[in-house]
Amino acid sequence: MTLKIYLSGEIHTDWREQIIEGAQALDVTFNSPVTDHGASDDCGVAILGAEPDKYWHDRKGAQINAIRTRKGIEGADVVVVRFGEQYKQWNAAFDAGYAAALGKSLIILHGAEHDHPLKEVDAAALAVAREPRQVVEILRYVLNGTLPG
Amino acid sequence: MTLKIYLSGEIHTDWREQIIEGAQALDVTFNSPVTDHGASDDCGVAILGAEPDKYWHDRKGAQINAIRTRKGIEGADVVVVRFGEQYKQWNAAFDAGYAAALGKSLIILHGAEHDHPLKEVDAAALAVAREPRQVVEILRYVLNGTLPG
Amino acid sequence: MTLKIYLSGEIHTDWREQIIEGAQALDVTFNSPVTDHGASDDCGVAILGAEPDKYWHDRKGAQINAIRTRKGIEGADVVVVRFGEQYKQWNAAFDAGYAAALGKSLIILHGAEHDHPLKEVDAAALAVAREPRQVVEILRYVLNGTLPG
Amino acid sequence: MTLKIYLSGEIHTDWREQIIEGAQALDVTFNSPVTDHGASDDCGVAILGAEPDKYWHDRKGAQINAIRTRKGIEGADVVVVRFGEQYKQWNAAFDAGYAAALGKSLIILHGAEHDHPLKEVDAAALAVAREPRQVVEILRYVLNGTLPG
Amino acid sequence: MTLKIYLSGEIHTDWREQIIEGAQALDVTFNSPVTDHGASDDCGVAILGAEPDKYWHDRKGAQINAIRTRKGIEGADVVVVRFGEQYKQWNAAFDAGYAAALGKSLIILHGAEHDHPLKEVDAAALAVAREPRQVVEILRYVLNGTLPG
Amino acid sequence: MTLKIYLSGEIHTDWREQIIEGAQALDVTFNSPVTDHGASDDCGVAILGAEPDKYWHDRKGAQINAIRTRKGIEGADVVVVRFGEQYKQWNAAFDAGYAAALGKSLIILHGAEHDHPLKEVDAAALAVAREPRQVVEILRYVLNGTLPG
Amino acid sequence: MTLKIYLSGEIHTDWREQIIEGAQALDVTFNSPVTDHGASDDCGVAILGAEPDKYWHDRKGAQINAIRTRKGIEGADVVVVRFGEQYKQWNAAFDAGYAAALGKSLIILHGAEHDHPLKEVDAAALAVAREPRQVVEILRYVLNGTLPG
Amino acid sequence: MTLKIYLSGEIHTDWREQIIEGAQALDVTFNSPVTDHGASDDCGVAILGAEPDKYWHDRKGAQINAIRTRKGIEGADVVVVRFGEQYKQWNAAFDAGYAAALGKSLIILHGAEHDHPLKEVDAAALAVAREPRQVVEILRYVLNGTLPG
Repeated sequence: MTLKIYLSGEIHTDWREQIIEGAQALDVTFNSPVTDHGASDDCGVAILGAEPDKYWHDRKGAQINAIRTRKGIEGADVVVVRFGEQYKQWNAAFDAGYAAALGKSLIILHGAEHDHPLKEVDAAALAVAREPRQVVEILRYVLNGTLPG
Repeated sequence: MTLKIYLSGEIHTDWREQIIEGAQALDVTFNSPVTDHGASDDCGVAILGAEPDKYWHDRKGAQINAIRTRKGIEGADVVVVRFGEQYKQWNAAFDAGYAAALGKSLIILHGAEHDHPLKEVDAAALAVAREPRQVVEILRYVLNGTLPG
Repeated sequence: MTLKIYLSGEIHTDWREQIIEGAQALDVTFNSPVTDHGASDDCGVAILGAEPDKYWHDRKGAQINAIRTRKGIEGADVVVVRFGEQYKQWNAAFDAGYAAALGKSLIILHGAEHDHPLKEVDAAALAVAREPRQVVEILRYVLNGTLPG
Repeated sequence: MTLKIYLSGEIHTDWREQIIEGAQALDVTFNSPVTDHGASDDCGVAILGAEPDKYWHDRKGAQINAIRTRKGIEGADVVVVRFGEQYKQWNAAFDAGYAAALGKSLIILHGAEHDHPLKEVDAAALAVAREPRQVVEILRYVLNGTLPG
Repeated sequence: MTLKIYLSGEIHTDWREQIIEGAQALDVTFNSPVTDHGASDDCGVAILGAEPDKYWHDRKGAQINAIRTRKGIEGADVVVVRFGEQYKQWNAAFDAGYAAALGKSLIILHGAEHDHPLKEVDAAALAVAREPRQVVEILRYVLNGTLPG
Repeated sequence: MTLKIYLSGEIHTDWREQIIEGAQALDVTFNSPVTDHGASDDCGVAILGAEPDKYWHDRKGAQINAIRTRKGIEGADVVVVRFGEQYKQWNAAFDAGYAAALGKSLIILHGAEHDHPLKEVDAAALAVAREPRQVVEILRYVLNGTLPG
Repeated sequence: MTLKIYLSGEIHTDWREQIIEGAQALDVTFNSPVTDHGASDDCGVAILGAEPDKYWHDRKGAQINAIRTRKGIEGADVVVVRFGEQYKQWNAAFDAGYAAALGKSLIILHGAEHDHPLKEVDAAALAVAREPRQVVEILRYVLNGTLPG
Repeated sequence: MTLKIYLSGEIHTDWREQIIEGAQALDVTFNSPVTDHGASDDCGVAILGAEPDKYWHDRKGAQINAIRTRKGIEGADVVVVRFGEQYKQWNAAFDAGYAAALGKSLIILHGAEHDHPLKEVDAAALAVAREPRQVVEILRYVLNGTLPG
């Protein structure tokens, strides 16, 4: 059994690297959005031509990013969504809703300070973790049946 | 043709009432989440018993609210999601993602100050409106083919 | 909004009647399996002819009952499954799994003594109630937003 | 043609080993739940933190186990569900219902003493076997067209 | 609960009338193919223009009939397929396969002399009846829980 | 049986009126796109604000029109697509492809001069008609089994 | 591009071998039912135990065969169904209907003498061939774009 | 992550070759229709026998081509549709609609002169490109996160 994992959400800390490194020995594959913030914002106009209006500048980029995001979520067995301490992160919550409607197994990763505003998102998840290490432990248990410690 | 509309998101202003009132002459039906904030937060423990841990207090409530939310979104032709000026509003973005994955027609309603953080959500929508009045005008045009003014 | 409810499971107490009576003022419809135990066991052979082997006697009946059960579950918004104190009740758990795979909102109704053996079923549900009265209160809140008391 | 098999249900006898060993020469792959009872019960709290309330202790574990179970059932061509002589085994019946709703080919494995309480589950199956050996023989016939003896 | 029934198959005896008449007191609706053999054969060319080649004559008609057949089967809860004593009746078996793949509840109606050639079709059905009267009795039991006699 | 019909394509002749009038006695309902060419082109900017770039002017309008088109096609039993003598009519062919992928019954209406360029579209249809009258005759036959003349 | 082909229907001539041999150079895989008539009829009782009643003898076998048939059809890109000169062959027509409802590409293979009784089946197909050689030529063209001769 | 691409539409310029060559270093696979115009037009009669009526000549060919087209589109992650300067190209628009209804990521490739007639098609796409080079740049960015230049 190979588990296909999509890592959605926050791009300002190294949580993805922690999970990928921690899961090196496991039968998993990872996908994620483009995490280069500048490239992600500008991909639309860089490829398809400049837009004077920032709104359409953003639209062009967001739609190209959606090609990757949808492929990643639709092909995943497990979608991990990380909410960090900053920013609105509405695209993370959008991805969680998208994955939930497709029946994907959701793991949400966030600090306790966000428990209340994330309660609807957490309620759709099969696990709520605080640390990337716990996500790795879940994947190891799901694949191999072994618990930490 | 009757359009079934689900009104998701912000609960602190009267945008739902504006849309419902404006659409009185149209062949539409409306659903929405429970907008009584206190009831929405406490429904789980009020019905199923108190929880000492706020986390499970929230979980119980969020899951009961999900019965209504999923019924409303899955039965809708058009899902309107309003982002206001305050709070995280991750459940609004979650609903938008959920509706998008089900192929629902999405209308997003928000001020220009949120254009950038909402760009992925807007990119999945068929219309982005600034005012409740515009949502009514879209519904009127979609149903009757008549434009404002 | 009308909620369509399917009441699955235990047939030896009056929990269905309690829920239906309690929900009289609500915009709900109810379906349930045939609860006449004798008719349910014998419907196959009574209509399609006797079988000397009890195994096929049971099969003929179970398949006719499945016409009703599948129609009821597939047409429901909410599936309530009651586990009582006696019998194996594997058909109740089967209905819960069937409903879960279809994405129905599940409410499970059982006493605390069954918490552990029902943990996988409960984990797929949006609410776990102890009393029929609580199911009515959930339906009332989901439809009208009003809490008990 | 490779057949993907999910082996659900009873964890106290060696029926899985018998099937896997018997099918060594066949083009099949097997998945199953974590069959270490203690790990399965405690995985939630071991990874995500202790819960004072046994109910939430169980919930956390059951939801993590669901990541594996759903992956296994959804990816399977054939779901074999074994009912043993002890315990409620409601999760086995839940898995059978889940698999049936997804249109999976079901093989149910149980002794004759459970024929009547399992009649609804059996009626959704394509085969009801008494012995693990028979499951192997079905798989061999389905793949190679060869009968025993 | 209203059951929507599609009556497929043999058009040379009055089995449809027997079922419809027998079910007058029940909450059911019936659909069926056009049973005027001549109109069914010639509808394509009568409306869309003559074809010199009988093969395309038949094709044009069969495709128009498919508009009605697919609507009827896709909208049905229960599909009853009658095999009579004459003709190839491949369209009846095709309808049965079509309905089975959509997960419809199938009732097959035929004499014992066809048991062996219909074994694959019967194996996909929830009931195999010999007489139209038995189909009525199944519908009455499924709707009302009452058995004959 | 009520047939829900969506009338897609050419908006410069009165073919829709001919069909609707001809079908007055039939159990059918009709939907269609907004056929006021000017309103259809300008609805986006009229409601959501002007765009200096014609490309985005068109996009805003096309997306609002899609709310109506998708609702109409997804809710239809039969989609009739008319290709006229002028213009590219790529939206008509797009609607036909959209409807085909959803398994809708397609009737294509066009003159013989377009037989070759429409061969892929026609090959996905259940009928190809030359005159609106023939569409009415198909609907009458499908509903009532009566042929013209 | 690999095409997965399921070869359904008649088992008394060597049409499958002709197609498989003719397609040796193509990027295709083939599946088919068990074509050993005796094994196919008796697999149920040979594995799961004798039945005194021929009806249940047949049922047990037909259901085990269905494990293979459904896997084969559901995994196929193209389903070829051959109707021969003898027998009822209702299972062939059933497979064709099953495949059609799943949206599989259907090729029907039969002599001209069956054109009329197979008209509904043919009308659901993308090709009707007379000779196994033609099926090979279709597969070669679909894969490589090369025509015979 | 491998992206599966289907290249639909215009067959008179070398745009497919430009994209395939440009994407040599990327983890992509390509499918497309048969682009030999003569073979595509005549495949039906060349394999299945001549037709005196050009209409059925075309139908036979279009249906065989549909086996390839549907396999290609249904198996794709991204469908690129090119509209050239000549011909009706209704099959290109049909493919775009078909892909849109299946939720595929659409990239439309055309000159600015077709912006207005293609506005409904473009509105269903995630990107509208002018040059094959831009399609390659989109694929490279989606796979590797690298922008041109």
